[in-house]
Amino acid sequence: MQIAVVGATGAVGKEMCSILEQRQVSAEHLRLLASARSAGRRVPYLDTELIIEELTTDSLSGVDFAIFSAGSDISRAFAKSPSAGTVIIDNSSAFRMDPDVPLVIPEVNPADALKHKGLIANPNCSTIIMALAVFPLHRVNPVRRIVVSTYQSASGAGAAAMQELRDQTRQVLDGQPVAPKVLPRQSAFNVFSHNSAIDDTGYNEEERKMVHETHKMFHDDTIGITATCVRVPVMRAHSESINLTFERPFSEQQVREVLESAPGLRLVDDRTENFFPMPIDAAGQDPVLVGRIRQDRSDPSGCGIALFVCGDQLRKGAALNAVQILDLLTQ
Amino acid sequence: MQIAVVGATGAVGKEMCSILEQRQVSAEHLRLLASARSAGRRVPYLDTELIIEELTTDSLSGVDFAIFSAGSDISRAFAKSPSAGTVIIDNSSAFRMDPDVPLVIPEVNPADALKHKGLIANPNCSTIIMALAVFPLHRVNPVRRIVVSTYQSASGAGAAAMQELRDQTRQVLDGQPVAPKVLPRQSAFNVFSHNSAIDDTGYNEEERKMVHETHKMFHDDTIGITATCVRVPVMRAHSESINLTFERPFSEQQVREVLESAPGLRLVDDRTENFFPMPIDAAGQDPVLVGRIRQDRSDPSGCGIALFVCGDQLRKGAALNAVQILDLLTQ
Repeated sequence: MQIAVVGATGAVGKEMCSILEQRQVSAEHLRLLASARSAGRRVPYLDTELIIEELTTDSLSGVDFAIFSAGSDISRAFAKSPSAGTVIIDNSSAFRMDPDVPLVIPEVNPADALKHKGLIANPNCSTIIMALAVFPLHRVNPVRRIVVSTYQSASGAGAAAMQELRDQTRQVLDGQPVAPKVLPRQSAFNVFSHNSAIDDTGYNEEERKMVHETHKMFHDDTIGITATCVRVPVMRAHSESINLTFERPFSEQQVREVLESAPGLRLVDDRTENFFPMPIDAAGQDPVLVGRIRQDRSDPSGCGIALFVCGDQLRKGAALNAVQILDLLTQ
Repeated sequence: MQIAVVGATGAVGKEMCSILEQRQVSAEHLRLLASARSAGRRVPYLDTELIIEELTTDSLSGVDFAIFSAGSDISRAFAKSPSAGTVIIDNSSAFRMDPDVPLVIPEVNPADALKHKGLIANPNCSTIIMALAVFPLHRVNPVRRIVVSTYQSASGAGAAAMQELRDQTRQVLDGQPVAPKVLPRQSAFNVFSHNSAIDDTGYNEEERKMVHETHKMFHDDTIGITATCVRVPVMRAHSESINLTFERPFSEQQVREVLESAPGLRLVDDRTENFFPMPIDAAGQDPVLVGRIRQDRSDPSGCGIALFVCGDQLRKGAALNAVQILDLLTQ
């Protein structure tokens, strides 16, 4: 079996290599592709080295599975008409809402993956992290409304944004002026609205992804979802404050039991120690941390539940989910 | 007229002095009080200096107005039975929910201030910042439900927490271990649940303050309010993502018009430039910044509105509001 990682030098691509390495996927089965700029670069892998190759129209020949994480333009150019026999798992947003392309979180809608026609889309990071906590509850008691506010890390804008956060932070501490380049606003010691395009509704693209991608994967367009997506000065895990309204009353205890046994989650919910999910604890981890579980006391119907989640944007929010889709297809 | 600032060396106390200085309140009318530890310290004020005096049971004799910002214990000990003739404006949470003590935001419920019996409470910072944006809308169209998630700065935990954020940030950048002391969790490059006491409902004290204080000032206990209070690595302005449901449909345009002319607010809502309220822009400013105004598309009734606000926690969130209460009483 030949696996190609396209965009291997990016923040998500590197994380994919690290996950494949942890799974002891042999170097012989792996090809790392990137732009001409990175071609020839050597990357340590297991007990050997891999050489980055330039992505060309011939690159995917003989490749069984290609995981793309090189942006929507590259995906549109190379993934739309894959070579015969190559299945593409695409981390960009290019095909996510295409009705012919399954959008998959293995813990949520694994069956959809098997309906692919050569292309499977990996959801947006904020959507994955939210869905992982909401879906197991939704299966027990349909969710009718989601109000979510995010606390998103620099990693969502790639390795350059993470470096910018480091550099800017030093500049601010040293009393020097900062000049944002990668992200449009000052990242250091600041909070700002997600920098994706805003449409006539006033919602930005990241917020719309959280709505439409959730509808698609839950197979339910009637769930009322509203999101506010915000960047915070954190390196690589996203946090989300989630307020849920269910069809029927849902006790805090029931919710805790469901989340405790749900796949891909780890409960971090210690009221005595005031210890809850934090991005520094989620960073580098596979599970999404969930806590601050409480009955929404403002909703007298008993149908309201509040949660707080943190998930590594580069792992479950991107690379890990893509590799898990690969697992689904190869099991 | 004699004014005393109690807790003059704290982050809020310093801000009070700075506001009184801006208003050219003469040094002769001002007394700065603090603990024995700070007594004798000289503080530059206008073209002179003020000497910090130790707060004792006699300190308030001859003082017309005392603004307390030295924590609940000091307020309980000194403000409960003030000297005859001294009116106390208390920034602690000690008396906020006391039915005999008015809780006041001058832009919201100024008339309540005039009903005082020698003691007026200054609300919680997160509550003030939220109420300033919600109240003008509520007057036009009653708000029925508020779902709010906060992004709170280090200043809310005082000057020591701000210094800790600076120190820890350098440690993380230098690859050194961090040992949180002032705040219980790592502040640098992290997000964590507000460190106030959690009760049986699962809500922490900061979240309960936002509910109960808003009910008291709006004179309406029936508004459903649920809050999730979170600390972010920002120095001194709080941000809040606010989802509102009103009694009747409320158009985005109407909301914008109301907020544009509401006192104490500044509209920052540029979709083309993706420019919205940010804590670095709110820091040191009097107005609360409001933006991301949009119809909540998940609520088909048209009664839903989403907002994002940023306000300086030390100014409008604390010191400025207290001085504005003083203005109300002396006008």
